[in-house]
Amino acid sequence: MKIKNKIILALDVQEKNKAYEILDELKEDLNTIKIGYPLVLNEGPEIITKIKEKYDFKIITDFKVADIPATNEKIVNTTLKKGADAIIVHGFTGKDSIKACLDTARENNKEIFLLTEMSHPGADLFLKGASEKIAEIGKELEIKNYVAPATKIDRLKKIREIVGKDAYIISPGVGFQGGSIKNTLKYANAAIIGRSIYNSNSPKEKIHEFIELSKN
Amino acid sequence: MKIKNKIILALDVQEKNKAYEILDELKEDLNTIKIGYPLVLNEGPEIITKIKEKYDFKIITDFKVADIPATNEKIVNTTLKKGADAIIVHGFTGKDSIKACLDTARENNKEIFLLTEMSHPGADLFLKGASEKIAEIGKELEIKNYVAPATKIDRLKKIREIVGKDAYIISPGVGFQGGSIKNTLKYANAAIIGRSIYNSNSPKEKIHEFIELSKN
Repeated sequence: MKIKNKIILALDVQEKNKAYEILDELKEDLNTIKIGYPLVLNEGPEIITKIKEKYDFKIITDFKVADIPATNEKIVNTTLKKGADAIIVHGFTGKDSIKACLDTARENNKEIFLLTEMSHPGADLFLKGASEKIAEIGKELEIKNYVAPATKIDRLKKIREIVGKDAYIISPGVGFQGGSIKNTLKYANAAIIGRSIYNSNSPKEKIHEFIELSKN
Repeated sequence: MKIKNKIILALDVQEKNKAYEILDELKEDLNTIKIGYPLVLNEGPEIITKIKEKYDFKIITDFKVADIPATNEKIVNTTLKKGADAIIVHGFTGKDSIKACLDTARENNKEIFLLTEMSHPGADLFLKGASEKIAEIGKELEIKNYVAPATKIDRLKKIREIVGKDAYIISPGVGFQGGSIKNTLKYANAAIIGRSIYNSNSPKEKIHEFIELSKN
């Protein structure tokens, strides 16, 4: 996945008009966005198709898929057929659940991102202890793409060590949640940034600021 | 939650016409159904509202919510506002993520079910080791409703011991996946059954069979 300016916009809004407004302003600086259930449950899954048609962005659906294998397969297949290019899946449900997502994405000639660890404090209780093993399972299954947190650089670094230099890591938590884009991009291939861009007075200036910071 | 015949129908189909056909046949024997993302992503979230209006069932949305607290809040709020009575949430993401779901459901005068453990083989790797602690967190947060698997009766029994006799446990895995309704209802308040009812030659006869088995 070739991500322009190494920035993925986390489009964490719930209204399509707000989404379009943000995308109109930033479309020259981006080619990849991440959308989640808050938008899709509010506007319906056709929003994926509509954004794809209107902007031709790469769309990563952050659905954190976490069900039994048979249900994961249906979720991934339906989502990718709506126009998403990739889907983020949880690893803590185990190897069979991950594999169901991977196989379904491959049948669709699309991709999954395996979520190894999350950026919120509560993730320390169970996910932190599981994340290295999740990354190892990903490697074993020859998964190419991973998600690891920018708010915990030591963890991101550790995940990079496990999945290897050829893996593709995207990293949420830059900006509002406190992560630095420069440090993040030492270990991740792209940073996922949302609120600190689109909630700023000038989203366009703000994204250029991040682009500059990532170069220095 | 008062569940007729102690059976929740897992409506794991993706087409609304198929869903309506099944519900039309079983509507006298049920008052509670569980629906998931495969149906909602295919037919759109308005399917929740439509089923609610057409049948007045209690609807448990099995969305296995597993995100950071701010996103969980949006997912739960949007889902409950569409007409769902309750939503199933993962415990693996930690206390803050669970609490965001609980608080949002309470604001809507609705309920969450905390998923303690799952029925598929892959769940043994991480979820099995976390499930008792997840149940303890549920108790600490005064969560009333839980999900625990019928395919692993010893685990279901253990979860019942932790959450106590006044908690409300619903249990998937009866029928197709191998769980027995009679054994399950020793520890759970209701069984979740899907394919073995609606894929049988006569769903109505099959559900009556389960109702009889649950009494003996």
